[in-house]
Amino acid sequence: MNPPKIFIISTGSELTAGRSQDTNSSWIANELFGMGFTVSKFVVLPDDPNSIETELRALAALADEQDPVLMIMTGGLGPTEDDYTLEVVCRINGVSSVESKIARQRIEAFYKLRGRNFQDSMQTAIRQVSVPEGSLILNNVVGIAPGFITTLGEYANANLCCMPGVPGEMTEMFRDEFSPWLSKTYSAKQLYSGFRFIWWMSESQFQKEFISREKTIESGRVIWGVAAKRGYIRVAFQSDEHALVEELLLKLDSVYGSKSTGNVFEELPKLLMEEKIVVGTAESCTGGLIAKTITDTPGSSAYFYGGVVSYDNSVKAGLLGVRQETLDQFGAVSSQTAREMAEGALVALGVDYSISVTGIAGPGGGTAQKKVGLVFFGIGKKDGETEIHEHYFPFPRSSFREYAAHTGIYLLYDRLKRSV
Amino acid sequence: MNPPKIFIISTGSELTAGRSQDTNSSWIANELFGMGFTVSKFVVLPDDPNSIETELRALAALADEQDPVLMIMTGGLGPTEDDYTLEVVCRINGVSSVESKIARQRIEAFYKLRGRNFQDSMQTAIRQVSVPEGSLILNNVVGIAPGFITTLGEYANANLCCMPGVPGEMTEMFRDEFSPWLSKTYSAKQLYSGFRFIWWMSESQFQKEFISREKTIESGRVIWGVAAKRGYIRVAFQSDEHALVEELLLKLDSVYGSKSTGNVFEELPKLLMEEKIVVGTAESCTGGLIAKTITDTPGSSAYFYGGVVSYDNSVKAGLLGVRQETLDQFGAVSSQTAREMAEGALVALGVDYSISVTGIAGPGGGTAQKKVGLVFFGIGKKDGETEIHEHYFPFPRSSFREYAAHTGIYLLYDRLKRSV
Repeated sequence: MNPPKIFIISTGSELTAGRSQDTNSSWIANELFGMGFTVSKFVVLPDDPNSIETELRALAALADEQDPVLMIMTGGLGPTEDDYTLEVVCRINGVSSVESKIARQRIEAFYKLRGRNFQDSMQTAIRQVSVPEGSLILNNVVGIAPGFITTLGEYANANLCCMPGVPGEMTEMFRDEFSPWLSKTYSAKQLYSGFRFIWWMSESQFQKEFISREKTIESGRVIWGVAAKRGYIRVAFQSDEHALVEELLLKLDSVYGSKSTGNVFEELPKLLMEEKIVVGTAESCTGGLIAKTITDTPGSSAYFYGGVVSYDNSVKAGLLGVRQETLDQFGAVSSQTAREMAEGALVALGVDYSISVTGIAGPGGGTAQKKVGLVFFGIGKKDGETEIHEHYFPFPRSSFREYAAHTGIYLLYDRLKRSV
Repeated sequence: MNPPKIFIISTGSELTAGRSQDTNSSWIANELFGMGFTVSKFVVLPDDPNSIETELRALAALADEQDPVLMIMTGGLGPTEDDYTLEVVCRINGVSSVESKIARQRIEAFYKLRGRNFQDSMQTAIRQVSVPEGSLILNNVVGIAPGFITTLGEYANANLCCMPGVPGEMTEMFRDEFSPWLSKTYSAKQLYSGFRFIWWMSESQFQKEFISREKTIESGRVIWGVAAKRGYIRVAFQSDEHALVEELLLKLDSVYGSKSTGNVFEELPKLLMEEKIVVGTAESCTGGLIAKTITDTPGSSAYFYGGVVSYDNSVKAGLLGVRQETLDQFGAVSSQTAREMAEGALVALGVDYSISVTGIAGPGGGTAQKKVGLVFFGIGKKDGETEIHEHYFPFPRSSFREYAAHTGIYLLYDRLKRSV
């Protein structure tokens, strides 16, 4: 039996109307990729029972004994009238729905805790504790609605797994309940993979100067992929030959030097913890995004003391001690201001290292000398020299801000790598 | 002729491997919704010419004279070897590719600017200036690759529009080039729509207490939709009868009072500009996310002076003047600390109003008395009283932070609405 053809389906009229973003499919695909499975297609459908039934039948019909089909569907398991998943699957399978005992107990305990006023709404909520008769129940440890796995109707080689659309519930269920079943049921290809971030590199430049010269890639022994992120590209290699992947990664490191890194957002925290270094930020154009990105990581309070968002010049002067004459002579967007912001942050926040950033995010605010996209960074060190970096990111506002925030974090990481 | 069945297709192996998120489809769907068109399905495919051809043919085959099909595809128009869109469409249509003159001129100008070193990579890049013979060219004013519109092969009632996958290029092309063509070619249903944010409301509670009692919704004269956001739900109504939509919106306002709002993130800036009010932030658990969210808006420097991210208590004390005895006696997560943070921010940042927030984002840091999810807000006013609000958002870290950031912004908006 070959590995299954995998289809990921999301349902929700809020998705196809563009009011919400489907983040579940790519999360699932990424997990599957890590487990050695490949996804053939994503499908996003409105909350319409006929569309859902048609789609499930069409995909299941692609299955045969050699090439089984696995459909992973999220959404439509909730308590509201536009949640059709259970109804559709029961209809295709010709079965009734049955309550999950565990889910029933959970919902009762939950509503008991909330008190009498919620007894009424439990009547609505109780709909979500059922699954199609004969299916394998996937417990929901975060929310209420259980998921389930079933062979779809008369399609003997097609399995369907349904999980809730709420990301926090789905991800727990996927890891704890679905993924062990998947490994037991299907055999994935044993694949090795690895990746690097390459900073300030474009996809086409990278393909031309690196990929096009690699024989193991040309011959298909190694599969490669690249994703353009803000400020870097993420290059991934995959092969059933471990050594080939390692070889390419080492080559990247040797060609791109310090611009080839692992996941800086995970490695920086490790480095700061190991070296017991505390850091802080002084941000202008990024408006708090660097601090926000650093504190996305749980436990960041161990190494991040805080930051100043000095959007107005009065705050640069007042809280960071940037001198008025520096602002007057060189302007807020200058290497001199970046330097004084970084040095001011060291003192104001009482930290070992600081990141400062000042630039022109646009769309307004550019001049002939200083165009929209220009940005200066300072990496300050207590009792040490401040390093200044100038960059030019001529992109729309939100991209510019992400480029600048990621670059600031990379520059701190790079400095620490050199000095510890 | 009925409105077209619309399918949105994104191609990219980085999408189906979960390394990148497809944001184009929902952006397009949202635009189409605003123009009165409904989307039947999204499909996301890997960079595989056979899959792409099979899918395009299957969708086109659904078209007939009464029900035309419109496929809107993004991605695969770039310069790299895994960009297959042009090749596939030429094959289905049985035509060659031809260069767009405008795109050719753009790329030459672009590489001239970049200097000699880039002449080599122009050979790779030039691939992207072609379109299938006989198609309508959509100019790309941001990047290089033009888009195009064509009837697909032998499927007379199926049109295919291909646009670049880079969001900044696609969105410009959609608005300037595609959308006028769309309006001219197909007639949308004339629909009226409106929306409200309802704060701290759950979808199922809302359905039970509001939607289930509305006759115009039950009868289908008004279509409704709801999307759960962090801290609020976004409720939308749509109908060909304008008065019915207005009636429901007014009813929401009367039932939910100040918790029913427009888009606070757009209305707050307007209010601050009109009233010439400047604001600042003092953030602990949100780590800069409130400042980041406020400065997402271009021109925010007119009313946002800055913020302090006081993650460590030393920064709360040092920059915001929170008293050590307050921190010792009541703790960092307390109404007292929130108050002193908000009042300290007024002084430190020199602003008229301030938002402070301190809470436990988790997963660690909770106690029996103060659980993960507890959060206090202060809304400070120069020469006025500080308002304190306590909330409990028992959600995973990143959700908690978004709930808290959105709530902080709402609370400032709500206070201003009451006082100006």
